[in-house]
Amino acid sequence: MDEFDFINKVKPDRIFQQNVKVAIGDDAAIYESSHGFHQVVCVDTMVEGVHFLRNLSSPFEIGYKALAVNVSDLAAMSAIPLYYFISLAVPSNWNEDDLIEIYEGMKKLSEEYKMDLLGGDTVSTSDKLVITVTVIGEVEEGRKTLRSNAKNEDIVFVTGTIGDSAAGLAILLGQTSIHNESLKRYFTEKHKMPIPQVKAGRLIGDLKRASLNDISDGLASELNEISEASHVGITIDKDALPLSDELLTLQSTSLLQDWALYGGEDYELVGTTSPDSWEKLTKDCNELGIKITKIGFVDSSHKEVMLKSKNQEYIKLKKSGYNHFKKS
Amino acid sequence: MDEFDFINKVKPDRIFQQNVKVAIGDDAAIYESSHGFHQVVCVDTMVEGVHFLRNLSSPFEIGYKALAVNVSDLAAMSAIPLYYFISLAVPSNWNEDDLIEIYEGMKKLSEEYKMDLLGGDTVSTSDKLVITVTVIGEVEEGRKTLRSNAKNEDIVFVTGTIGDSAAGLAILLGQTSIHNESLKRYFTEKHKMPIPQVKAGRLIGDLKRASLNDISDGLASELNEISEASHVGITIDKDALPLSDELLTLQSTSLLQDWALYGGEDYELVGTTSPDSWEKLTKDCNELGIKITKIGFVDSSHKEVMLKSKNQEYIKLKKSGYNHFKKS
Repeated sequence: MDEFDFINKVKPDRIFQQNVKVAIGDDAAIYESSHGFHQVVCVDTMVEGVHFLRNLSSPFEIGYKALAVNVSDLAAMSAIPLYYFISLAVPSNWNEDDLIEIYEGMKKLSEEYKMDLLGGDTVSTSDKLVITVTVIGEVEEGRKTLRSNAKNEDIVFVTGTIGDSAAGLAILLGQTSIHNESLKRYFTEKHKMPIPQVKAGRLIGDLKRASLNDISDGLASELNEISEASHVGITIDKDALPLSDELLTLQSTSLLQDWALYGGEDYELVGTTSPDSWEKLTKDCNELGIKITKIGFVDSSHKEVMLKSKNQEYIKLKKSGYNHFKKS
Repeated sequence: MDEFDFINKVKPDRIFQQNVKVAIGDDAAIYESSHGFHQVVCVDTMVEGVHFLRNLSSPFEIGYKALAVNVSDLAAMSAIPLYYFISLAVPSNWNEDDLIEIYEGMKKLSEEYKMDLLGGDTVSTSDKLVITVTVIGEVEEGRKTLRSNAKNEDIVFVTGTIGDSAAGLAILLGQTSIHNESLKRYFTEKHKMPIPQVKAGRLIGDLKRASLNDISDGLASELNEISEASHVGITIDKDALPLSDELLTLQSTSLLQDWALYGGEDYELVGTTSPDSWEKLTKDCNELGIKITKIGFVDSSHKEVMLKSKNQEYIKLKKSGYNHFKKS
């Protein structure tokens, strides 16, 4: 494979953002930042056999998801996604067509946000494919939806529904069997091609104050991060957890709860805001057709993350979350 | 290895840049861009067994170099290095102490430039260590030292000396033997811990116009990139190539020339500027003690990269450069 030839094949044929001064093709990319905005940057890596299995996902899906999980981090900072960089360490059993499909998967998602691919690196390795994506976005100066922003009496909320991605993974791994093909597709799609909650992140950033996390490692883990960073206790109402109608068609209730709390990879947003702001947020979300659910509150009576069930039983939600296909 | 515990161990205990708004510890980092500057970003990946061999380099040296090669790309854009992100895909035969040493190597170099580590990712993989570094710098608006900037009659220059790194690699691989220990150390150090030419890059960016590349794949390859991007021919004077006194102590002249032209990983800068600007540049470099050498000129009589020797023989310099330890 010729590197220059390959770069020409995956190089975007158009640039969305006018602020791009130098795109792919020199030692580095150059862009102009927007007046009144700060730069938001994060990097995430996905490894074959750990974060994805080649026999379960197409190269297109793998590429899509590698970008999606990074955009989800930007959403959790209330940022506008703008640019991305991709680095691939490629073993010899992946061919050029596979790599082009990975780029196509990213392109598909990036077009939703008018994100520009500004560079990266492709090198060879001996065993497993490693994909590292760097994303850059911008957020208004002074706007920070940090994990440490939670305060007592805040409403705890989550966007969308949770647990579907874990159900999809269980189906893909053959741990759960479902006969209805369209249901099956619903869950596996939720796992393989999650939709980052960028619009919701922007609305939440409009509030006076909000803490925010995206759900990559599972609701319990993300809530614990907010609890620790903000030094507050959180009480979650078990019956309030937003499960999809699709998930509720499945039988085993204890499994559903596990998926919702610990499954991870939902890439929904979980956070807290004051009861006053909560009213504004539900109204704003309603207008854009974004599902958002109150699932509990920041609770000054303890310092942990507790799950309350109908019969007033409390259990402590531990940090343990999603461990991918392999324990790290 | 506990991820949160590990992050705490490698998290910097101070932040240099006042523009950092959110450092390591949330979903993404946030920084403020400087007024009148553009953002410069690049990503590079190094793979165990391809870009470094574990028995030849310490984790500290591997970390140092992974950052250095990225900073060198910023230097080639005349940028001020500011921030970096590190992503590691780690197989089980690398332990936590090794990883901490990788971070220490990066820290050592980053302190030279007051660069801040703002984030990254650590994941497990099955076979070879993969390090991806993202660096961000800033450059004055309108300042672009692009490969495509070369014009006819430009002076072609190179900073420092070339070929030392390739000599170091040959020594490390046992292809060349040297008995003098201090010489040996000189070459292997040049290979393992290259110094990015940030100051030179800044001076070159001060000129009215300059084309610029850093030498990662070898002088011949970088010159070809400038030639192609600028649609110009380049003639290099073989006798003008700046070789170190150390390199000249070695015997085989043809080997030296190969190292200088094709060896790569010098991380010096090669570029072109007008004869007028060349005067200013040599003066500026002199004042800062930076070695810079005229090695040829942009030549309207042909469209390729030609090497001219004393007896007026011309040979074409091909793009083929450094291929690391393994053909890609």
